[in-house]
Amino acid sequence: HRTGIMEAILAEGKDPEDVVQIAKAQVAATGRVLITRLGVKHREALESDFKPVEIEWSLHRNAAVVHDGTPSPRTGGVVAIITAGTADIDVAEEARMVAHELGCETIAIYDVGVAGFHRLVGEMLKLQDRKPDAIVVAAGREGTLPTVVSGLVDVPVIGVPVSTGYGAGAKGEAALLSMLQSCSVLSVVNIDAGFVAGSFAARIANTVAKARSRE
Amino acid sequence: HRTGIMEAILAEGKDPEDVVQIAKAQVAATGRVLITRLGVKHREALESDFKPVEIEWSLHRNAAVVHDGTPSPRTGGVVAIITAGTADIDVAEEARMVAHELGCETIAIYDVGVAGFHRLVGEMLKLQDRKPDAIVVAAGREGTLPTVVSGLVDVPVIGVPVSTGYGAGAKGEAALLSMLQSCSVLSVVNIDAGFVAGSFAARIANTVAKARSRE
Amino acid sequence: HRTGIMEAILAEGKDPEDVVQIAKAQVAATGRVLITRLGVKHREALESDFKPVEIEWSLHRNAAVVHDGTPSPRTGGVVAIITAGTADIDVAEEARMVAHELGCETIAIYDVGVAGFHRLVGEMLKLQDRKPDAIVVAAGREGTLPTVVSGLVDVPVIGVPVSTGYGAGAKGEAALLSMLQSCSVLSVVNIDAGFVAGSFAARIANTVAKARSRE
Amino acid sequence: HRTGIMEAILAEGKDPEDVVQIAKAQVAATGRVLITRLGVKHREALESDFKPVEIEWSLHRNAAVVHDGTPSPRTGGVVAIITAGTADIDVAEEARMVAHELGCETIAIYDVGVAGFHRLVGEMLKLQDRKPDAIVVAAGREGTLPTVVSGLVDVPVIGVPVSTGYGAGAKGEAALLSMLQSCSVLSVVNIDAGFVAGSFAARIANTVAKARSRE
Amino acid sequence: HRTGIMEAILAEGKDPEDVVQIAKAQVAATGRVLITRLGVKHREALESDFKPVEIEWSLHRNAAVVHDGTPSPRTGGVVAIITAGTADIDVAEEARMVAHELGCETIAIYDVGVAGFHRLVGEMLKLQDRKPDAIVVAAGREGTLPTVVSGLVDVPVIGVPVSTGYGAGAKGEAALLSMLQSCSVLSVVNIDAGFVAGSFAARIANTVAKARSRE
Amino acid sequence: HRTGIMEAILAEGKDPEDVVQIAKAQVAATGRVLITRLGVKHREALESDFKPVEIEWSLHRNAAVVHDGTPSPRTGGVVAIITAGTADIDVAEEARMVAHELGCETIAIYDVGVAGFHRLVGEMLKLQDRKPDAIVVAAGREGTLPTVVSGLVDVPVIGVPVSTGYGAGAKGEAALLSMLQSCSVLSVVNIDAGFVAGSFAARIANTVAKARSRE
Amino acid sequence: HRTGIMEAILAEGKDPEDVVQIAKAQVAATGRVLITRLGVKHREALESDFKPVEIEWSLHRNAAVVHDGTPSPRTGGVVAIITAGTADIDVAEEARMVAHELGCETIAIYDVGVAGFHRLVGEMLKLQDRKPDAIVVAAGREGTLPTVVSGLVDVPVIGVPVSTGYGAGAKGEAALLSMLQSCSVLSVVNIDAGFVAGSFAARIANTVAKARSRE
Amino acid sequence: HRTGIMEAILAEGKDPEDVVQIAKAQVAATGRVLITRLGVKHREALESDFKPVEIEWSLHRNAAVVHDGTPSPRTGGVVAIITAGTADIDVAEEARMVAHELGCETIAIYDVGVAGFHRLVGEMLKLQDRKPDAIVVAAGREGTLPTVVSGLVDVPVIGVPVSTGYGAGAKGEAALLSMLQSCSVLSVVNIDAGFVAGSFAARIANTVAKARSRE
Ligand SMILES: Nc1ncnc2c1ncn2[C@@H]1O[C@H](COP(=O)(O)O)[C@@H](O)[C@H]1O
Ligand SMILES: Nc1ncnc2c1ncn2[C@@H]1O[C@H](COP(=O)(O)O)[C@@H](O)[C@H]1O
Ligand SMILES: Nc1ncnc2c1ncn2[C@@H]1O[C@H](COP(=O)(O)O)[C@@H](O)[C@H]1O
Ligand SMILES: Nc1ncnc2c1ncn2[C@@H]1O[C@H](COP(=O)(O)O)[C@@H](O)[C@H]1O
Ligand SMILES: [Mg+2]
Ligand SMILES: [Mg+2]
Ligand SMILES: [Mg+2]
Ligand SMILES: [Mg+2]
Ligand SMILES: [Mg+2]
Ligand SMILES: [Mg+2]
Ligand SMILES: [Mg+2]
Ligand SMILES: [Mg+2]
Repeated sequence: HRTGIMEAILAEGKDPEDVVQIAKAQVAATGRVLITRLGVKHREALESDFKPVEIEWSLHRNAAVVHDGTPSPRTGGVVAIITAGTADIDVAEEARMVAHELGCETIAIYDVGVAGFHRLVGEMLKLQDRKPDAIVVAAGREGTLPTVVSGLVDVPVIGVPVSTGYGAGAKGEAALLSMLQSCSVLSVVNIDAGFVAGSFAARIANTVAKARSRE
Repeated sequence: HRTGIMEAILAEGKDPEDVVQIAKAQVAATGRVLITRLGVKHREALESDFKPVEIEWSLHRNAAVVHDGTPSPRTGGVVAIITAGTADIDVAEEARMVAHELGCETIAIYDVGVAGFHRLVGEMLKLQDRKPDAIVVAAGREGTLPTVVSGLVDVPVIGVPVSTGYGAGAKGEAALLSMLQSCSVLSVVNIDAGFVAGSFAARIANTVAKARSRE
Repeated sequence: HRTGIMEAILAEGKDPEDVVQIAKAQVAATGRVLITRLGVKHREALESDFKPVEIEWSLHRNAAVVHDGTPSPRTGGVVAIITAGTADIDVAEEARMVAHELGCETIAIYDVGVAGFHRLVGEMLKLQDRKPDAIVVAAGREGTLPTVVSGLVDVPVIGVPVSTGYGAGAKGEAALLSMLQSCSVLSVVNIDAGFVAGSFAARIANTVAKARSRE
Repeated sequence: HRTGIMEAILAEGKDPEDVVQIAKAQVAATGRVLITRLGVKHREALESDFKPVEIEWSLHRNAAVVHDGTPSPRTGGVVAIITAGTADIDVAEEARMVAHELGCETIAIYDVGVAGFHRLVGEMLKLQDRKPDAIVVAAGREGTLPTVVSGLVDVPVIGVPVSTGYGAGAKGEAALLSMLQSCSVLSVVNIDAGFVAGSFAARIANTVAKARSRE
Repeated sequence: HRTGIMEAILAEGKDPEDVVQIAKAQVAATGRVLITRLGVKHREALESDFKPVEIEWSLHRNAAVVHDGTPSPRTGGVVAIITAGTADIDVAEEARMVAHELGCETIAIYDVGVAGFHRLVGEMLKLQDRKPDAIVVAAGREGTLPTVVSGLVDVPVIGVPVSTGYGAGAKGEAALLSMLQSCSVLSVVNIDAGFVAGSFAARIANTVAKARSRE
Repeated sequence: HRTGIMEAILAEGKDPEDVVQIAKAQVAATGRVLITRLGVKHREALESDFKPVEIEWSLHRNAAVVHDGTPSPRTGGVVAIITAGTADIDVAEEARMVAHELGCETIAIYDVGVAGFHRLVGEMLKLQDRKPDAIVVAAGREGTLPTVVSGLVDVPVIGVPVSTGYGAGAKGEAALLSMLQSCSVLSVVNIDAGFVAGSFAARIANTVAKARSRE
Repeated sequence: HRTGIMEAILAEGKDPEDVVQIAKAQVAATGRVLITRLGVKHREALESDFKPVEIEWSLHRNAAVVHDGTPSPRTGGVVAIITAGTADIDVAEEARMVAHELGCETIAIYDVGVAGFHRLVGEMLKLQDRKPDAIVVAAGREGTLPTVVSGLVDVPVIGVPVSTGYGAGAKGEAALLSMLQSCSVLSVVNIDAGFVAGSFAARIANTVAKARSRE
Repeated sequence: HRTGIMEAILAEGKDPEDVVQIAKAQVAATGRVLITRLGVKHREALESDFKPVEIEWSLHRNAAVVHDGTPSPRTGGVVAIITAGTADIDVAEEARMVAHELGCETIAIYDVGVAGFHRLVGEMLKLQDRKPDAIVVAAGREGTLPTVVSGLVDVPVIGVPVSTGYGAGAKGEAALLSMLQSCSVLSVVNIDAGFVAGSFAARIANTVAKARSRE
């Protein structure tokens, strides 16, 4: 999958048994596979079909990597993932896990959006010491955080709108539009598309890592 | 017009001569009248029909008060108007002029949106010394400024989306939705509705001023 | 939370046990906490984990304050909440409870919208005797009531569109648009955003109360 | 044109000379023809090609009947046309003229929307003395007037949204949606469709007139 | 309820017990009441709380009149209700029942839309013998039928878009827009608003009946 | 251009001189070229740069073929183009001219939509005698005609929505949605896309013609 | 059903028993009937009411033909159906089954969209050997495949957008719009309208087959 | 402007004299300034106020850098810009010029979209020899090109939808949605936002260049 999108399994809309079966085939072929957008039934099927040591869960268990012990590649790329609130974590975890599978070191900084500007500036200063090559920022409701982060750093920032909230502009619509209208340097992926954001950030980070390793 | 909306003239869509004629009738009746959303032709008609001392222009001459020397009432209410960029000034001026006509002292702080967070905090500290009773914040594109201002003060903040920009969410749509989705304490008026924002802020300020004056 | 939004818990989308746990932590920290947008499961969890004397329910039990006996602060601000129909009451109750938690006396006048103009005028005359500092008006379908109320009083009126109905413009869309296009002096919050309307009305009322108390 | 829509000429989008030519043919055939949505160029062409006594203009000359002296038929039906503001008059005049051409007596009551509820009730009482068979109400912005009128009378009321205003819901969108969501007994035609409203009201009035004349 | 909308009960969104209780109160007060948009639970509650002779069901039991034997008034008005397909019948039945409660004789002609033009012309000829004063036409998908019917008769035709189908323009959107854009003489109510269509048609029919009875 | 879209020139948005220059190059290369969506300036440039015998105009001169006498190929395919009204003719002419350039015989039947059902049935009977292989039907406003035509014939019918009208659903939106929701066998191209409709119809007709010629 | 749409049963929204009953009546009348958009309950009812040999299922059993042994007619038309991904198969199967019932030979090529350009070109070359008369291409998300296929072949290609995915443009919206904006020669049916696509493709194929058979 | 957006001048909506004046001030301060979205009047003002050697125009003169001879910085980053058609070049030129001003070498490959897949593959192979660090792809109508390019390379690809076309999905809407729904690894900026795309691509390229230069 050199230039295509990573071979992950989108569980949503598939039968749990089908997910398990495709996952087993993929593990047999390549040693590991990422599965995203898991529901309760998918989770139960994975737990009854794979041993605990073969599953790496995301924070809220809505994504998972199953494997046979084969490690993911290591490229030297570094991707940070930031969320505004707790409701944004599932989408952020998708981005983190796909970046990890694509070889990047990942740094998760969750729930800083409501922390006030001063704590955010502090977090960004600490982050810059760790020299991320790309930053994914997930945010719902009015979606301001990516704009603010991009104004504080000089690495590429990718905004991911998250489908939270109620009323006009809910389900990520206000967040998507305000990221597209942002006055900062920002690129955007679709609502809830943590998978695309992580893949894109990894592509940047791996391009940087390759340049670094040529020294 | 105690509880109705102020008797201003909306020039847009009216013949210049009609605007002049309605304005003259209104000045004859009450001494003053505010005219909003003026085009080039309206401006020329006003200038050829009223003496310079009878016209108070907004900053970019897209709104004006014509009068016969009668001053507007003074209530003691204080309204601040803040804009994110220079493109937001016309809408802000409408808000400022209607608040003035309704008796309020007005404080205009324009073009702070791109100034960076530290200058904004400084401006807000200076503003709080002047004790505004209500704050109108006009912002286009992604419309973030009202959210930020409301997080820094404890007086009521009214957001006015401004119809700037191009692409998805342009013409005030992203700004309106992100103000409606804002995590701060904020109320909103329609896109470009500086007139409503100023009227509403004046209503708050005049309610506060009345309470103050009962001492 | 001086200038931020009040620290309430948005139950919708959270596990009932998580809501109880966050609520207990908040009560331990500050004595009281408001919980909004409760479902059946959340209600059962609250009832089995808190004593009846520790819970103050909204009219239809979709919002609640849990507390350890600590009273909410009293500021002297006065907020009225009016609804057009019975379907608007849940949203109105959110506004009433947050205004109460923020220190205001609250006056609830529900279900006047279909009562005909004469009863409405009567209610508004009675209301003015109680001297509200701000009025929240919740209305669904075509959302006319806030416009009418604002034409009858001279205190600030905040419209809250409610997500009722079926067909084109349902789910609060017609109500939101007609409040934004209103010919009266009106500001608006998002569809169903009783929480924001109550917070904003309380900010006005508390600003007025502070002015009053300086006498 | 017994059951089809009346054979009027929609000038908008046609060359002025073509409009004159079609009009002449129609006058030659039937004695009279209504022309709607006229621009400045169409007006000039009509004035240079028809004698003043052959043209009956609408109030603002954006519609006209040209004729050779042939009167329109008289059916005995009575149609009232009411507008909220002055901006709604052009659309109302289309309704009035088509109802007249279809044989109805017409009663125009313009600009009552901002007059306050008491003057409106007075106008409606006076109107009921004239026993209209159907009422067309044209209103822009939030489009409330048809709802209010329908609550005061018991003849059929047809709402016509008018494409005024700026911001979200402008160009008749808020008015259309709030008429569709109205709590009163109301039917609706498209935005600016004075022509359809007048045709439909005339169909009602002529049905009533026929019943009346059977005595 | 002379000029207001009829006092029916909208069951949707109400507890079944509440519906029964409001219905009993209304029957006690006026002898009869219409209940619309019933779900399975509402149906069961009505059946266990009212005797069979006290309930008049609509065709698919999604609307009902409960009564104590009191008959509805008889005005002499005549309303026809036509549907394009079987999926439109529930909405049509609402229109039929409200027109009946408001005193009109009703004529139901269902499922003619797919019958081909010749059967439709035949049905319309038969219908004209029964001299309806107003015709309600319910149609989903592309909503053509009201346009066709209005071209075949000269009584007022009210179109009701029905929320059927899938894909772009589904849920009544295409039907609403094509009725608003219709080249025939047509007025429209909201999607699925059989209740409004029936009320409006009854208002026309009762106005005609009054004229007839003056002979 | 065997499988790609025909190499026509889209004049809209291009400088008149550029259009002439591209056209001359194309004529030099292939003998003929179709130019679509011409404005007044483009027309003047074509007339001053090409001899009258070198230009074949569409009915209203908004499209043209320029050539050096080289004829278009002849395939034996037959394409009919039908319009509902006169406003649909420009779009229909684009379809007709591209089908002609692609080798088909074309049959234009314009302005039958308001002619009533009986004349339409007559036209369709006459048309079937000419054995078209595909039919393009252009219609604006509510876009009913393609649905009706497809119910009367058994050759493939392609609907083209036309951007006429005012109010909700105008500019082809109602027509597009009702063609997509049509109960007849119909495929659709974009609003005003006469060029695509003609190309697609020609592809069908040429496929049929090839089958015919194999005899 | 010579020129109307085929008499299939749309199961969605119907009671399982009603579907069985209508199906039995149709089989009794014509020997066979297609049923589309089946849910789990419908499937169970069909399986308990028809013998296995009387049911032909689609690949995922969401459509079926029930019959009494009567075969479908054979016309000699050839229709190919191609899908981009596995999520598009249900819609494609509807198209395939209706084309089969209308007499065409069908060729199903599923899941080529992610296969890379070279495999797609290979598949298209193989397909051209089988000489399809029309090609249906079903694609979700960004809906590119019909555009690409139409650029590789010279038979008519019909695009069917499929309602997959999440985020902005999901549920077939992006796919529909990009097919309508396609630079290839393409006609389109509504989202998920496999039934219409198959009917339309069969109409083309049967027209071609008739031409072929005249030899 | 280390982390903020580059200080360019957005000419659209500004008076030509104001643009010249701001440009002169900026040149005085920093030696160079980029001006975007120029109209005819802006162009004339720049030409009469700056010497030819002081202006670097974009291909179609809708963007320009004015300078006093000061060169832009050189970072070693490499950005490629690709367009589908000629209509996309203005947006692409904005991206190219801002990337150049931010220090990057730029490679422009315009108008490959309609060239067929084989020429595109060839161009991409040639491009990879020049080792771009990031690629901007501008495309209108259905916006396919960025998806295809991203599947052929392994550097980050940023899609820019362009506001071309007519009909549903025009003005960049179909292109934006299909880029957001793309199955390739892609990030997106707003419609016509060449400025943002170029800024973002330069941020990537400069991050890579910095890594390279550490060797
Ligand atoms: N009904 C509500 N609508 C909007 N915001 C709310 C609501 N209820 C609570 N909140 C706020 O939502 C924010 C996030 O809440 P939580 O997810 O509970 O941490 C907090 O600032 C709450 O004060
Ligand atoms: N303002 C109007 N709105 C809608 N239809 C109209 C209007 N004026 C005339 N028409 C009708 O439009 C149809 C086409 O008009 P024309 O294009 O003049 O032949 C005729 O049936 C007219 O009666
Ligand atoms: N009216 C039209 N609608 C859509 N495409 C067109 C039209 N006229 C020409 N085209 C095509 O648009 C593409 C770009 O045209 P051009 O911009 O002239 O190079 C060419 O493939 C033309 O065949
Ligand atoms: N084409 C463009 N699109 C978006 N932003 C731009 C564009 N050109 C300049 N800008 C930025 O817009 C902001 C406001 O510009 P100005 O109104 O010229 O002060 C500045 O930060 C510019 O860098
Ligand atoms: Mg956020
Ligand atoms: Mg802003
Ligand atoms: Mg209401
Ligand atoms: Mg109004
Ligand atoms: Mg229908
Ligand atoms: Mg039409
Ligand atoms: Mg696809
Ligand atoms: Mg493109």
